Amino acid sequence: MALKVEQALHMVGGAGETSYATNSRLQEKALYRTKPILETAIAELYRTLLPERMVVVDLGCSSGPNTFLVVSEVLGIVGDLCRRLEQKPPEIQFFLNDLPGNDFNNVFRSLERYEKKMEEEKGDLLVPHYVVGMPGSFYGRLSPRNTVHIFHSNYCLMWLSQVPQGLESEQGVPLNKGNIYIAENSPPQVVKAYQEQHRRDFSTFLKSRYVELSIGGGMVLTFLGRKSKHPANGELSSLYGLLAEALNAMVSQGIISQDKVATFNLPIYGASMQEVKAVIHDEGLFYLEQAQIFESNWDPFDGTDDDDTVSDNVLNGKNVAKCIRAVFESLIAHQFGAAILDELFVRYAEKVARHLLKEKTKYTVLVIALKKKA
Amino acid sequence: MALKVEQALHMVGGAGETSYATNSRLQEKALYRTKPILETAIAELYRTLLPERMVVVDLGCSSGPNTFLVVSEVLGIVGDLCRRLEQKPPEIQFFLNDLPGNDFNNVFRSLERYEKKMEEEKGDLLVPHYVVGMPGSFYGRLSPRNTVHIFHSNYCLMWLSQVPQGLESEQGVPLNKGNIYIAENSPPQVVKAYQEQHRRDFSTFLKSRYVELSIGGGMVLTFLGRKSKHPANGELSSLYGLLAEALNAMVSQGIISQDKVATFNLPIYGASMQEVKAVIHDEGLFYLEQAQIFESNWDPFDGTDDDDTVSDNVLNGKNVAKCIRAVFESLIAHQFGAAILDELFVRYAEKVARHLLKEKTKYTVLVIALKKKA
Repeated sequence: MALKVEQALHMVGGAGETSYATNSRLQEKALYRTKPILETAIAELYRTLLPERMVVVDLGCSSGPNTFLVVSEVLGIVGDLCRRLEQKPPEIQFFLNDLPGNDFNNVFRSLERYEKKMEEEKGDLLVPHYVVGMPGSFYGRLSPRNTVHIFHSNYCLMWLSQVPQGLESEQGVPLNKGNIYIAENSPPQVVKAYQEQHRRDFSTFLKSRYVELSIGGGMVLTFLGRKSKHPANGELSSLYGLLAEALNAMVSQGIISQDKVATFNLPIYGASMQEVKAVIHDEGLFYLEQAQIFESNWDPFDGTDDDDTVSDNVLNGKNVAKCIRAVFESLIAHQFGAAILDELFVRYAEKVARHLLKEKTKYTVLVIALKKKA
Repeated sequence: MALKVEQALHMVGGAGETSYATNSRLQEKALYRTKPILETAIAELYRTLLPERMVVVDLGCSSGPNTFLVVSEVLGIVGDLCRRLEQKPPEIQFFLNDLPGNDFNNVFRSLERYEKKMEEEKGDLLVPHYVVGMPGSFYGRLSPRNTVHIFHSNYCLMWLSQVPQGLESEQGVPLNKGNIYIAENSPPQVVKAYQEQHRRDFSTFLKSRYVELSIGGGMVLTFLGRKSKHPANGELSSLYGLLAEALNAMVSQGIISQDKVATFNLPIYGASMQEVKAVIHDEGLFYLEQAQIFESNWDPFDGTDDDDTVSDNVLNGKNVAKCIRAVFESLIAHQFGAAILDELFVRYAEKVARHLLKEKTKYTVLVIALKKKA
C-alpha cells in the first residue's frame, strides 16, 4: 500500500541543530518575498467585508520561527490598513495547521514568548488576536463551511497526500528503481503516476478550501514548482537526483539494501505553473488573482538569488544538506532507519557541492493568489 | 512573586503508569454524572438557534481519554437531538483548551485514532466535526467576541490563576507554615487571601466568557468545591492536609527543607456553592440555570459513592495517591525537585489509607449551568 504522508512525515521537532526550527531559512525568505501579495489579498478582503472578526488559517505551519512570522505579517498588514482607513481593527483568530505529527507543543510554548514580545513592542497598536492549533491534512476538510477569510500556505503544496499509486508494475515490480523522484530515466508510467497524484491532490485541496472559505475570502499559496515543461527537467529532479545518488553509493557499499531504495519514492511534486493553472481552471471555483514565479538559491544563506556565481560551493552543499535533512529526515528514517542519516547527508552535501560547480541550479517557487467565486 | 499557575502546572504527559491519561478516572466519572445537564444546555441552545455551525470550547481539556469523551458526548447529544427534531445536524467545531504546557502533541496524535474509531462506529450517523487545540489560560480571553455557543469545563475551575497573593506577612514571613492549603490552624489572612484570589479569578473567568459567548450561548461547569461554610472544614482541606503531613514528615527526617514547605501553597480553592453563586450574582452577566452538588469517593475506582463503608483502605490510599500525583507532580517537582516524588506519594498513600479508616471523606463536586444574559 502506498505510504500516506500523514503517517510518516513531520519536520524535525524541537530547536536543536538539525531541527526544522533551526533550518527553515528558505521558507522564511519566501515569506518576505510574497508579503506584497498577501498584503493585496488582505486589503481587498478587508475593504470589501470590513469584518469585525477575521479567521486566518496557515496551512502547514510547521514548528519554528516562521510559524509566528506569518502571524506577525498578518497583524502588521491589518494594523496598518486599519490605521490608514481609520477603522477599529478586527479581532483575528489564527488557526495554525499542520499534520498531527508536527511539534505543536513547541509551537504553543513558543507562543507565550511571542505574545509577550509583541505586547512589549506594539502595546496598544497590537491588533487583538487569538492563536489555536489545527491538526490534520489539508487534503481534506479542516474547518466548518464558510468560516475562513484567508488561507495562507508557504512551502507545503508540493507535498502530495501520499507516494503516488502506480509506481509498481502489475506484478508488483518497482518501476522507478534507483530513483526517488522523477528522473530522466524514469519510465513514462512513473511520470504519469506523479502527475495524476498531483492533479487529484490539488483538486481535493481546492474543493475543500472552497467550502471552508466565507464569501469574499481568498488564498495566498507559495510552493516549490518547476520552470520546464517536462517534470524530469525540473530543478527538484536535480536536487533529489543527487540524494538518490548518495543513497545508491551506500547501496553499492552494502550499507543499505537495493530493495529499500527501489521502493522509496518521495511524496512530492514540483508542478509547472501551467499544470497548476489547468487544475484551477478545471475546478472553476476560484479566480486566479495573481500568479508569479521566482527563483531561490538552493542554499538559503546565499543571498545572491539574482546571479549565477558560486562563491563557496562546499559551504553551500552543507547548508543545502541541513535544510533537506530537517525536512526529509522522518521519511528517510522511516524507510532506511535513523542510523544512516549522518553519513547520508555528509555524502549528499558533497554531491550538491560538486553539482553547484557545474551549474547553479535554483529552486523555482510559484506564488498564486486565489479568490473564491461567488 | 506569586507563582503563576500557567508557568508550572501541567498534568503528567504521555500515557505511562503515572500519567494523567492513565489516572483520570475521577474526572471521567464526573463527565458521566453531569451529562444530563450538558444535554439540557445543548438542547435548549439548539432549539433556540438551530445553528448551522456550532462552536464548543472545552476548558482545561488535559491530555487523555477524557479529552475525547467530551467530544463524544457532545456529538452524541447533538446527533440524537437532530434525529428527534428531524433536522440536518450542524457542523461542530471543538476547541480543546488547556495551558500551553499541556501535552497537546499527545492529544493530536490520539485524535487520529479517535476519528477512525468514530467513523467505524457511527458511519453516516456521525455529526460532522473539526477539532483544534487552544492553548492559554481561561483566566483571560481565548476567543474572539460572540463566537462560542457552549463552554464546557470539567474539574478545572478549582484551580486558581496563581498562588494567592498575601500568604506572607509584610516582612515576607510565610503565614501558612506547615500547611499547603487552608487548614484549621491557618491564620485568617490566609483564608482571606484564598477567598479573594478565588473571587477575582472566577469573576475574570465570567467576564471573559461572557464576551466570547454568542447570543443564546451557555456554559456547563463542573469543579471541586466544599459543603461546609468555612473553607478550613472542606473536604479538600482534609485531602491536602494529609499531603502536608507527608511533606512535614520528610522535613523532620531532613529529606526536604522546612523553608520549602513553608513557602509552598497550592493554587487551588474549593469554593462553596454559596460563594460561587455570590460571584455570579455580583457580576450579573449570566442566568444560573442549574446548580447541583454531588459527592465522589476520593478513590475513583471505589464505585460506592452512595455509602460510607471502606472495604480496602490500603488500595484506596494507593489509588488516591496516583490520582493526586498525576495532577500535582509538576507543581511539587517545581518546588521540591523530582527526586522526592516516589517517596512522598508512598507516604501519602499510607496517610490517606489511615484517614479513610476514621472517616470516608468524599470530594464535593459542584455543577452549574449558566446562560448568557441578552
